[in-house]
Amino acid sequence: MIIIDGKKVAAELKSDIRDEVIRRTSLGLKQPHLAAILVGNDGGSETYVAAKVKDCHEVGFQSTLIRFTDNVSESDLLGAVNQLNQDPSVDGFIVQLPLPRHINENKIIEAIDPSKDVDGFHPVNIGRMALGLPSFLPATPSGIQQLIDYYHIETSGRHCVIIGRSNIVGTPLSILLSRKSIPGNCTVTLCHSSTHGLKELCLQADIIVAALGKPGFLTGDMVKTGAVVIDVGTTRIPSAATKSGWKLSGDVDFNEVSPKCSYITPVPGGVGPMTRIVLLQNTLKAAGDKKQ
Amino acid sequence: MIIIDGKKVAAELKSDIRDEVIRRTSLGLKQPHLAAILVGNDGGSETYVAAKVKDCHEVGFQSTLIRFTDNVSESDLLGAVNQLNQDPSVDGFIVQLPLPRHINENKIIEAIDPSKDVDGFHPVNIGRMALGLPSFLPATPSGIQQLIDYYHIETSGRHCVIIGRSNIVGTPLSILLSRKSIPGNCTVTLCHSSTHGLKELCLQADIIVAALGKPGFLTGDMVKTGAVVIDVGTTRIPSAATKSGWKLSGDVDFNEVSPKCSYITPVPGGVGPMTRIVLLQNTLKAAGDKKQ
Repeated sequence: MIIIDGKKVAAELKSDIRDEVIRRTSLGLKQPHLAAILVGNDGGSETYVAAKVKDCHEVGFQSTLIRFTDNVSESDLLGAVNQLNQDPSVDGFIVQLPLPRHINENKIIEAIDPSKDVDGFHPVNIGRMALGLPSFLPATPSGIQQLIDYYHIETSGRHCVIIGRSNIVGTPLSILLSRKSIPGNCTVTLCHSSTHGLKELCLQADIIVAALGKPGFLTGDMVKTGAVVIDVGTTRIPSAATKSGWKLSGDVDFNEVSPKCSYITPVPGGVGPMTRIVLLQNTLKAAGDKKQ
Repeated sequence: MIIIDGKKVAAELKSDIRDEVIRRTSLGLKQPHLAAILVGNDGGSETYVAAKVKDCHEVGFQSTLIRFTDNVSESDLLGAVNQLNQDPSVDGFIVQLPLPRHINENKIIEAIDPSKDVDGFHPVNIGRMALGLPSFLPATPSGIQQLIDYYHIETSGRHCVIIGRSNIVGTPLSILLSRKSIPGNCTVTLCHSSTHGLKELCLQADIIVAALGKPGFLTGDMVKTGAVVIDVGTTRIPSAATKSGWKLSGDVDFNEVSPKCSYITPVPGGVGPMTRIVLLQNTLKAAGDKKQ
């Protein structure tokens, strides 16, 4: 059984990005610039955005953080999105989700210029992905694909069962892994809360992706020997062992499942570190070969 | 075993559309207007477009057919698309596929204003469908969904195996039937040419959609008793029994499979007639409540 080291892979890819920025600069190309819009003071969102800003700094990107209070109007937020769309110095930007309830998230996402949508959440990017056209891929699905690729895990013709059909993980990953590409070309079964016989389906799977947000959901009796298990869960559960008082828990019962696997991602240190890398990769791609 | 009568359902829906056009007219709303661009003289394309024009006539839509010869340049075709995008009298339009090889089909499709893309092929419409947002649905997947709905076939939580991952049938249908909507909310397995153990997967399916374009591919030993079988195949095969010298063949061995089914679509007269209806429905939707 091999534990997939997402931290190590992410560090290597990050180093590649840093090298690429240096190479770009030496050629007189533009320093990539990622902007983020953060609304309110949600603890999780603050942490994620701070990490993204830190990542930018570390790889040599320019970064801009635009903050709004919780009571920002939808039209002011749309105004900020339009300004970033127009700003030639900004290559890509994200609007950190979730947004306050009085704001229509889909309306905000659809207002983003697809060519700057480095989160890959805009319908154009999802649609282009589904059609096999070049696009910005959403972070988690692309991060999983890159981990599979790094470890040379065979996917073609193999049966992949995905548990969870969210718009940011399960659904786009099912599309991505079904396509005739490497890694990919899987037979994908997309499961969810209404699925009957989930255990029997999982027992047939060569690859299982657990992305439903229920700590320890995938147990040993649901996994066949030799399966590849990818754990996307990141639920905070109380813990006496940490200073913060909580720890991250995956959707997989690691102790039970890992002995049966050929490969498994841990939580933390598996898929998580990869998602931040994809955002940097997408921003680099958005910068393209623009001159300084 | 019930044979799904696509011809009958399509006729009823067509009659509904005709009634709706009369109602619109009485309210002073605009007559829906569908335009089609046809390039070259391909026999199949000629037939399809002629049928669409006839449909428009029958339901009281205005229709416009724009023809180009095989050697039209990509830029001239893009020009025609832009003209239709700008023309306020045209509510929706299609570019009949396939196009000659020297023209980039994706480029043409992406040039269509998504709000007039009544074929539902534009990435924005595919992406919005994947995200569960309102969109123009592609004809065959939507037609299948409506047949399922008409016959009150239970789909929620049921296992649907789709054979074939084309951009116009298998892939969008897998997305559509996976979503939490009725009909839908299925556990979907998307199979294709690289799938291993296809027979075993099919034998587990409550619903099988055969959309691979291989006459008679799905045989009786691949189907469990009581399954719903949807046949999307429409391959022309030589026939001594018809005037034309050919007949349509589905992907299902109807004689073997039908006795095992709870419901099955025949070819012809199953899914086929529905696809033309969806185009009319989408055009009606595109016309919205525009005034005369």
